[in-house]
Amino acid sequence: MKHEDINSDFKFNLLKKDKSSNARLGKIFTQRGEVNTPVFMPTGTQATVKALVPERVRELGAEIILSNTYHLYLRPGHEIIRNIGGLHKFMNWDHPILTDSGGFQVYSLGALRKITEEGVMFQSHIDGSKHFISPEIAIEIQEALGSDIMMCFDECTPYPADFDYAKKSLDMTIRWARRCRSAKKNSNQALFGIVQGGVYTDLRKRGVEEITGIGFDGYALGGLSVGEPKEAMREIVEGTTPLLPEDKPRYLMGVGTPEDIVECVGYGIDMFDCVMPTRNARNGMLFTNEGKVVIKNARYRNDDSPLDSLCDCYTCKNYSRAYLRHLFVAKEILANVLNTIHNVRYYVNLMERIREAIKSDNYEAFKKTLNSELRTRN
Amino acid sequence: MKHEDINSDFKFNLLKKDKSSNARLGKIFTQRGEVNTPVFMPTGTQATVKALVPERVRELGAEIILSNTYHLYLRPGHEIIRNIGGLHKFMNWDHPILTDSGGFQVYSLGALRKITEEGVMFQSHIDGSKHFISPEIAIEIQEALGSDIMMCFDECTPYPADFDYAKKSLDMTIRWARRCRSAKKNSNQALFGIVQGGVYTDLRKRGVEEITGIGFDGYALGGLSVGEPKEAMREIVEGTTPLLPEDKPRYLMGVGTPEDIVECVGYGIDMFDCVMPTRNARNGMLFTNEGKVVIKNARYRNDDSPLDSLCDCYTCKNYSRAYLRHLFVAKEILANVLNTIHNVRYYVNLMERIREAIKSDNYEAFKKTLNSELRTRN
Repeated sequence: MKHEDINSDFKFNLLKKDKSSNARLGKIFTQRGEVNTPVFMPTGTQATVKALVPERVRELGAEIILSNTYHLYLRPGHEIIRNIGGLHKFMNWDHPILTDSGGFQVYSLGALRKITEEGVMFQSHIDGSKHFISPEIAIEIQEALGSDIMMCFDECTPYPADFDYAKKSLDMTIRWARRCRSAKKNSNQALFGIVQGGVYTDLRKRGVEEITGIGFDGYALGGLSVGEPKEAMREIVEGTTPLLPEDKPRYLMGVGTPEDIVECVGYGIDMFDCVMPTRNARNGMLFTNEGKVVIKNARYRNDDSPLDSLCDCYTCKNYSRAYLRHLFVAKEILANVLNTIHNVRYYVNLMERIREAIKSDNYEAFKKTLNSELRTRN
Repeated sequence: MKHEDINSDFKFNLLKKDKSSNARLGKIFTQRGEVNTPVFMPTGTQATVKALVPERVRELGAEIILSNTYHLYLRPGHEIIRNIGGLHKFMNWDHPILTDSGGFQVYSLGALRKITEEGVMFQSHIDGSKHFISPEIAIEIQEALGSDIMMCFDECTPYPADFDYAKKSLDMTIRWARRCRSAKKNSNQALFGIVQGGVYTDLRKRGVEEITGIGFDGYALGGLSVGEPKEAMREIVEGTTPLLPEDKPRYLMGVGTPEDIVECVGYGIDMFDCVMPTRNARNGMLFTNEGKVVIKNARYRNDDSPLDSLCDCYTCKNYSRAYLRHLFVAKEILANVLNTIHNVRYYVNLMERIREAIKSDNYEAFKKTLNSELRTRN
């Protein structure tokens, strides 16, 4: 099935494949602009990339952000966002948005949710109120939000899960994917399928066959980075990614560290999201070209050098480590702002470097350089 | 004594006096730029106007900010700021800064401080460590910070205080002012004297005579807005301000509400500072041209109109009340950012309107309009 059958505004061009790895250079076209891949999507859970005005997010080079269906459904409510004119207008971000389906958040609720064939009953983490989300409702919410890329509602298979559970879970996710595909009304929004299957290669393979058989605008690997060993995650991504259609974007959900991103780009992944840069920023853990910096460390008390001498971000251009440490220790809101600016820029810049390396056909060499950079400090 | 004797870079020009009141239009010149008066100085207690990058503060029209000697002395320490190149460089604000002397903060410590002729022994509110600030030390700290306007170290006379206490307190503040004047080394920094005297008109008059007799670049009324009735505050300001030299800026410390500012400009005050716009912003209390808005109110849930239809700030230009309510209820950091932007703009704009009214010689009429605006909502 061609993407035109699903969404006439959405397109993916595979521009180049790296000679030394499975890394790929591509471009996603949406009605709200282009996205160069491999791409990292900063997280805007509650209709804001925490601490940043959207113009700043854009200035940092982000071309697409992720927002969360579960959170926005509960608060402020998707109908309110629809009434205000959709999520883009609501949050003042006129560039592409991908919304997850709520599957992962509902899964994270643990004892507060009950999964049946029909969908998931769950209690709000905010006020304990009871709610029900089915594949059809997840699509309806995402259509109310008006995101550019919607995700199918899936069951995020937990880790550990035995083979039988993982198989049943995968089968239901496949049936739910069909229901999502049928429920979709708005042809201006792309829809991605999600491949589950736990850490079982055979299940992942079956997931790919079934989900690609239904036909979506892009494909995601879900249920990873949920507690399994890093090696298991990488093995599954390495084994599963090449099975996905070459002409559609491939999205590894919820990953991850700079190391994981660099590794998984080498397996052929095009899209990533993770709370790490933004959450770590708020915790004072900053990524730099010389390794991680824990900014509250006393050694930065009197340090007038920039956080990262190679970084071109607003924070690094205008402030000293001593100032950043002061703001963090004094619990100033501006600490969150400046630290988030830097960490998002670090991730966006990492993706720019990754794309440059693929263009120059030396991805494997770049990986080595980067991994040694990441080891420098600590 | 002429200002040239004290600081060759600092100058105040009285441009115009209103015909209908004692309101004055003026301009302060400093080595870091001009300040149009009457002016409101946003508070940057810990070397940041909370939640805002300094470029934003400037864009909102702020020409000078206030920072706190007591806080910066304790954290990160004035020597660190001196080493980094001074407060302006430390916080990336290349425009005028006024630093208070720490007198008011030390006074706020209550039982944690002991006042003697020599100075004040106090315990840090952060870690309980013991410290001593004298007039000489207060000047030394402010010289390390490198502010454009320093304040004399004073005893903020509490309210209530009987006449004898208020008199003793005033006398010590006068002796301390002489010591501050003698301690001052850096001719690039202006120094303002502070008139105390509680709610006693006679003491205030004596304070003015003694402090202006010593000779400073500007004069402040201190010890107001510390719990006394609003009427007492206004009476003292109305009675004392005209006694101050016409050719020096007059600063009413820690005031206040829009109503108080408008009133006290009419008494001849040129400079104000207050945490109200920034603190209220973080508490979701927003000033608008239609009165106060408590943004968490359910009536704004679905309100797609801007916070203040007459406001030109970034927040009002780009976001709905529904979005601002959502951010506030969801405890998002961006709520602090957007609300602070608006409230600071409201105060800066209020001062612009005040200056315009003085220019047009209709300050009394403007006061009526504004007071009726402020009564509209709530």
